[in-house]
Amino acid sequence: MWVIGVDLGGTAIKAAIVNEWGGREEIREIPTQAHLGRDHVLENRLLPLIEGLIKTAEKRGMALGGVGVAVASPLDPWKGVVYYPPNLPGWGVFPLLAFLKKRISLPVYVDNDANLFALGEWRWGAGEGETPLLCLTLGTGVGGGIVYQGGTIWHGAHGVGGELGHITIDMEGPLCRCGNKGCLETLASASALERWVREAQERGRPTLLAPGAKAKEIAQAARQGDSLALEAFQWVGRNLGVGMAALANAFDPQVIVLGGGLSKAGMLLLSPAVSEFKRRVLPLQRERGEVRLALLGNMGGVLGAALLALGLGVENQER
Amino acid sequence: MWVIGVDLGGTAIKAAIVNEWGGREEIREIPTQAHLGRDHVLENRLLPLIEGLIKTAEKRGMALGGVGVAVASPLDPWKGVVYYPPNLPGWGVFPLLAFLKKRISLPVYVDNDANLFALGEWRWGAGEGETPLLCLTLGTGVGGGIVYQGGTIWHGAHGVGGELGHITIDMEGPLCRCGNKGCLETLASASALERWVREAQERGRPTLLAPGAKAKEIAQAARQGDSLALEAFQWVGRNLGVGMAALANAFDPQVIVLGGGLSKAGMLLLSPAVSEFKRRVLPLQRERGEVRLALLGNMGGVLGAALLALGLGVENQER
Repeated sequence: MWVIGVDLGGTAIKAAIVNEWGGREEIREIPTQAHLGRDHVLENRLLPLIEGLIKTAEKRGMALGGVGVAVASPLDPWKGVVYYPPNLPGWGVFPLLAFLKKRISLPVYVDNDANLFALGEWRWGAGEGETPLLCLTLGTGVGGGIVYQGGTIWHGAHGVGGELGHITIDMEGPLCRCGNKGCLETLASASALERWVREAQERGRPTLLAPGAKAKEIAQAARQGDSLALEAFQWVGRNLGVGMAALANAFDPQVIVLGGGLSKAGMLLLSPAVSEFKRRVLPLQRERGEVRLALLGNMGGVLGAALLALGLGVENQER
Repeated sequence: MWVIGVDLGGTAIKAAIVNEWGGREEIREIPTQAHLGRDHVLENRLLPLIEGLIKTAEKRGMALGGVGVAVASPLDPWKGVVYYPPNLPGWGVFPLLAFLKKRISLPVYVDNDANLFALGEWRWGAGEGETPLLCLTLGTGVGGGIVYQGGTIWHGAHGVGGELGHITIDMEGPLCRCGNKGCLETLASASALERWVREAQERGRPTLLAPGAKAKEIAQAARQGDSLALEAFQWVGRNLGVGMAALANAFDPQVIVLGGGLSKAGMLLLSPAVSEFKRRVLPLQRERGEVRLALLGNMGGVLGAALLALGLGVENQER
């Protein structure tokens, strides 16, 4: 059986036709054009992309079982209603699942992109078959996903479980866009790294980096031996280690998977993060807990969405 | 059916005969005499207490289905092995379940006391039937328990899940006995409250309190309007609110239940804790998340242990 996996983000919409062994065909990526508003994104971007893939599958004789959509938004995973996606302006509260069901003649499923990223890594990625699995997606913000018992996503009581970027690790730390202070997101994201470098530059620290350097450039400079860039990664990695230790003490995961743009820095980030993690976490996790880099890259959301359409991720509890 | 619930702590061993509706008969409490070592506690305290209850049940014609034991110790919940219980000196690594199975002619079950406290509150206490439920036991330390899906205890990958007292809320905060810094336990326990008062006294702050005041005395002084004692509860309550917000963002619980000695301070603690919690937590939890005081008092462990013997708490996942 084949399904369509879709990853609807603020910048790009990615999609592919995927089978139950993770085989991918017809991988597509188009700009979201989010600034043109909800109706444009839905009618001129998302639906044509999905319809195109359905037609392609029909032509090629691939039997389709459903469509899974990963959305970069807080949402009610049972009703499929998104709530004010920060990177999809003008969406407000929108019943995405009901809309898609009306317009697509296949079973449709939606969930949060970080949850589905975690599901993808659990099934075909760095944490294959291991539960509980915690996943952190380190980008502009820090997303989180929790997979337990045979591929179930932890949704919590109100559908918003797994916001692992919003645990406080420094109660008097920087103000977070969520309103809290010292969230992991304010201390272990690409934005946090960039802010740290900018503040050091403003204090006159010498560096190869131009003002306003992005995380990718900071990683390049660190690899070239720029001491400010190296110190920035030590700082952000250490903060990440503090957060991972707190999460590991609470959840006792089999594995923590790190994804998102910042995780592409690899050992620059992982080395200080894991050493701080081991320094702080309780003994059994220190010995047996594992931290790994994600394997699915920017296809994680698409593959997780495909798994949702394949019947995984859903609670076995009735609601 | 009746079962025996036992709560083995560092100071006292409590036990009762309990039925499936939470009815309790023959409630017993004896000193642990932990300083006399493991063999003494097992042979002269724990076993005679259990055997006495078994005989009583027989005499009274109550059919016993098993014995559940809550232990104040890190343990492997599947093998029933305790690891260096901090308040049971000389125990080391000990196969408690195997020992009890050899000596008691009924089915025996063991788990961590904080986990079973949470299970008790989920079934017969402040969070009846509500999942996910998080429970914090605020005493000398801070214990934690997580109950999900129809009364399952979250044990994690290695059996040590739910150590909610060891999430870091202040990464440069006080050193914790676990080796980490700024754990919730160092900032929201009875010991933390006592330390805060002691340090304020040493700085010469006027107070009704004698040096070395305990949490209970600090609560009394606060009720009499002692401003130092009131400020101490504001501080510890606020820290607790920070920790609860972090946990609520990660787990999205239906309810957070607060137990343990410090929770007896009631609104003195709850009021600053809940207002800080609401200030920091994500929107859906702010609107719908609930924080409640435990209802079962010092019988929580006994009742949770009884529920374990009645077949609750165990993962429905095969291992």
